[in-house]
Amino acid sequence: MTGGAALARVRVVLVGTSHPGNIGAAARALKTMGLARLALVNPRRFPDPEADARASGAADLLASATVHASLADALAGTRLAIAFTARPRDLALPMLDAAQAGELAAADAAHGEVALVFGNETYGLANDEIALCQRYARIDADPGYASLNLAAAVQVAAHEVRKAALRPVPRDYAPPDAASHEDVEILLARLERALVAKGHLDPADPKRLTERLRTLFHRARLSRTEVDLLHGVIGALEK
Amino acid sequence: MTGGAALARVRVVLVGTSHPGNIGAAARALKTMGLARLALVNPRRFPDPEADARASGAADLLASATVHASLADALAGTRLAIAFTARPRDLALPMLDAAQAGELAAADAAHGEVALVFGNETYGLANDEIALCQRYARIDADPGYASLNLAAAVQVAAHEVRKAALRPVPRDYAPPDAASHEDVEILLARLERALVAKGHLDPADPKRLTERLRTLFHRARLSRTEVDLLHGVIGALEK
Repeated sequence: MTGGAALARVRVVLVGTSHPGNIGAAARALKTMGLARLALVNPRRFPDPEADARASGAADLLASATVHASLADALAGTRLAIAFTARPRDLALPMLDAAQAGELAAADAAHGEVALVFGNETYGLANDEIALCQRYARIDADPGYASLNLAAAVQVAAHEVRKAALRPVPRDYAPPDAASHEDVEILLARLERALVAKGHLDPADPKRLTERLRTLFHRARLSRTEVDLLHGVIGALEK
Repeated sequence: MTGGAALARVRVVLVGTSHPGNIGAAARALKTMGLARLALVNPRRFPDPEADARASGAADLLASATVHASLADALAGTRLAIAFTARPRDLALPMLDAAQAGELAAADAAHGEVALVFGNETYGLANDEIALCQRYARIDADPGYASLNLAAAVQVAAHEVRKAALRPVPRDYAPPDAASHEDVEILLARLERALVAKGHLDPADPKRLTERLRTLFHRARLSRTEVDLLHGVIGALEK
């Protein structure tokens, strides 16, 4: 597949954006780098004239942008989501830098849908939003002032994805048949029901265990085959 | 020298900027990447409240920004200036991409002052402005819509410089005692005077020949030693 076809499979997801101007500027950033898909989760104001103005020649990307009530909804169909976060966090995986994130996104987009996820201008992404992503990235910045504008961060990320997509990728980062977002959520829901039925899980507060399992599955980057295998295991155990 | 010290020697020069918001956003972009110096050539409006607003936490960079009546003035003291241009041009040298420009700027900043030069939002840099620069760069973009916002382009360029400055540089790109902008201009002015005196040059229209010599000298990346040598040659010839 060509690099351009891989770029077409990369969506940018903006979560809880406060300033519509940043949505427009992000659309412009995407389009200049050959990306075409923008997903918005609970934007404060959209559509908005300020978004239109800052989008400049990328009005088509705003027109085709999808609006979602949750990040999970915006990630439908993805095999890889990379959360961009400015703050160092206590995460299960090391942070990728922007170039590594671009390489990973481009490599995975050869096989399926990929999302780059950006949080609110002030607060970034919440922990439960980051938990929906398989990998985390941070754009290296000056420790004294690391506050990139949202659209500027999107521009840097898209630039790195474009660079990586348009050059040969020497190695693969994940199974070709990676499980989708939904595959994993369905598996988790089934496992949760089974554990409740067995009295292992308090149905009033099942959250913690499910969260840990989600983190584990995403860290492992499950294949579809492995998801089927786990369904088989659960089915056998719950009999 | 450390990568941070190299970053401190890289200035960004914005020529003929129309929108003060872009000046503010560019200042923010610089500061996030650990760059600290902004030079403005004939900005349409500066200072301006819109620049302040978009600069966010980078007000100090706007306060210390220098304003110049010509690009030549803004390049004073530099040993290398890289012109960023969106359009393919008939230039004497191949275009660098953003990563190559970042590597070159970081490598040269280990030896002295470096400038990254950006033109007007609509018209870019004029040919006589590009001619003042030793190298040219273009941020790769989608052929269908290559119009990066000015501050977004500055962000990408600064990101690439930072990446290059903070990793070891394996090789050198130019003589350690590279001639400064002024060294070359003084040499050119002297040569021009000598040629006029000899009747080789029409003092009413000396432009074309001087321009060609400037292009030649910049392409060669003269060292100070070579500038001295050329002064000696001119002095000997004009006797």
